[in-house]
Amino acid sequence: MQIKKFPEFCEQVLPDFNKFLNDKLNSEIKQETLRDAMLYSLNAGGKRVRPMLFLAVAYSCGVKLEDLPKYFDIAGAIELIHTYSLIHDDLPEMDDSDYRRGKLANHKKFGVGPAVLAGDGLLTQAFYWIAKSSLVTDKRMASVRILAHNAGPMGMVAGQMTDITMENKKLSEEDLTKLHKQKTADLITAAVTMGAFCANHDSSKNLVKYANSIGLAFQLKDDLNDSDNDEDDNKNTFPNLIGKEATEVKLNDLVKEALNAVLKEEKFDKNLLVSFLDYFRE
Amino acid sequence: MQIKKFPEFCEQVLPDFNKFLNDKLNSEIKQETLRDAMLYSLNAGGKRVRPMLFLAVAYSCGVKLEDLPKYFDIAGAIELIHTYSLIHDDLPEMDDSDYRRGKLANHKKFGVGPAVLAGDGLLTQAFYWIAKSSLVTDKRMASVRILAHNAGPMGMVAGQMTDITMENKKLSEEDLTKLHKQKTADLITAAVTMGAFCANHDSSKNLVKYANSIGLAFQLKDDLNDSDNDEDDNKNTFPNLIGKEATEVKLNDLVKEALNAVLKEEKFDKNLLVSFLDYFRE
Repeated sequence: MQIKKFPEFCEQVLPDFNKFLNDKLNSEIKQETLRDAMLYSLNAGGKRVRPMLFLAVAYSCGVKLEDLPKYFDIAGAIELIHTYSLIHDDLPEMDDSDYRRGKLANHKKFGVGPAVLAGDGLLTQAFYWIAKSSLVTDKRMASVRILAHNAGPMGMVAGQMTDITMENKKLSEEDLTKLHKQKTADLITAAVTMGAFCANHDSSKNLVKYANSIGLAFQLKDDLNDSDNDEDDNKNTFPNLIGKEATEVKLNDLVKEALNAVLKEEKFDKNLLVSFLDYFRE
Repeated sequence: MQIKKFPEFCEQVLPDFNKFLNDKLNSEIKQETLRDAMLYSLNAGGKRVRPMLFLAVAYSCGVKLEDLPKYFDIAGAIELIHTYSLIHDDLPEMDDSDYRRGKLANHKKFGVGPAVLAGDGLLTQAFYWIAKSSLVTDKRMASVRILAHNAGPMGMVAGQMTDITMENKKLSEEDLTKLHKQKTADLITAAVTMGAFCANHDSSKNLVKYANSIGLAFQLKDDLNDSDNDEDDNKNTFPNLIGKEATEVKLNDLVKEALNAVLKEEKFDKNLLVSFLDYFRE
């Protein structure tokens, strides 16, 4: 029985995936402070959206539920990268956040030096996990390439640099879209395209379109949720630039674009990715 | 005519390699601040010891001088990793160094936030370069695995964490050796073993022994050079722990161990790696 709803898919897969993440890091990392700091942020309440999307795409391409654990190393690598990016983002000279999801930020709990290193450790270990995965070499190699391209200085890191250097300066709508694309959408696009590639799926032009749209939608939804917060007035966000209502219209358009894109995809069970869009309607 | 001396090898290879590094990063990184910050530290006077060792090992295994540029992506990845580690090491809450090789540290030149991101960018791009190299997939995959293993939280990052958390606490000789092995030797060992692997060299047990010994010797020589500096009294170094003379004896022993190890290596031109040991006798 094929699962059709994204939340149900997560319910089935997440417990094993969470156990996998923790067992693996616990057994690999011997340096205690480093292990504690890495695990602290890995277990700080994230919903695992990116690795679940990766696994959902693989499943939608025909990988059976019982075979998904073979893809956990690569899904895990995506989550390690996302976790590192949050730790470094929260640092005093970056976003300077003392809390993340109601828990102390990594650097408030362990200190700035250890937090930098916990991030470096998570980032590097991601590539180790891909290299050691049991998938065939070509899939691992493509995963390294896509992930490094989208999460590195041609993607996410570039977006983050634009974000911190342009704070308090007004960006155009075009530049802000580019910033969000790099900072948020590129890693989500990596998760989706890696999922298709690892599951032998031919074309992924529509999936890239889907992923880019939901990536931007993510950022808009986040910024709409935060837009009542006065502190954020100087941040480069769509609610600050074009107002809340216009941002809501834009968010709806992006969700429609994502839907249209995924409906065009062939040889692909569309249910899970269509169901995922409900998140933006909540 | 096979080159026999390491300095002569570097003289032949370095100009092209330096041009390669700069051209590649310049063309790939579009975000200006990020590109500037990454290139600043990449060109801050490093001697490219690790990538030159990687290339020297490949050459000693039989790769022709004119074919070495095919190995530049992977040599470059090693240098990117080394450069990122220096940027993050110099940060205020790490080693807190305002200068590196007589030039302003990255965070003094660009700010702490951009320096963290320049490091993240270099680290991630290293894996992109390996993934995009023209070497066969197995060699690229092994390079990702060895580099991530030795430079990440099971190697260099673990050593760095021990270093900053144990500062002002006295380590045993055994623990200090482990710290130096991880923090300094592991990346050098990665360079040497990746060189052998990429050049189809069978066994590398002796090369690992060679690499570990020169890795530790590097750290001892550095610490001996710095040992007249009063500021460093609280640092965990061999000169501080066992005294300068005993450290010199230890350094000599390591160089002898390295020499013995490389002389045992078969089907391998030993000249370059033997010549490299002169560095420790200067």
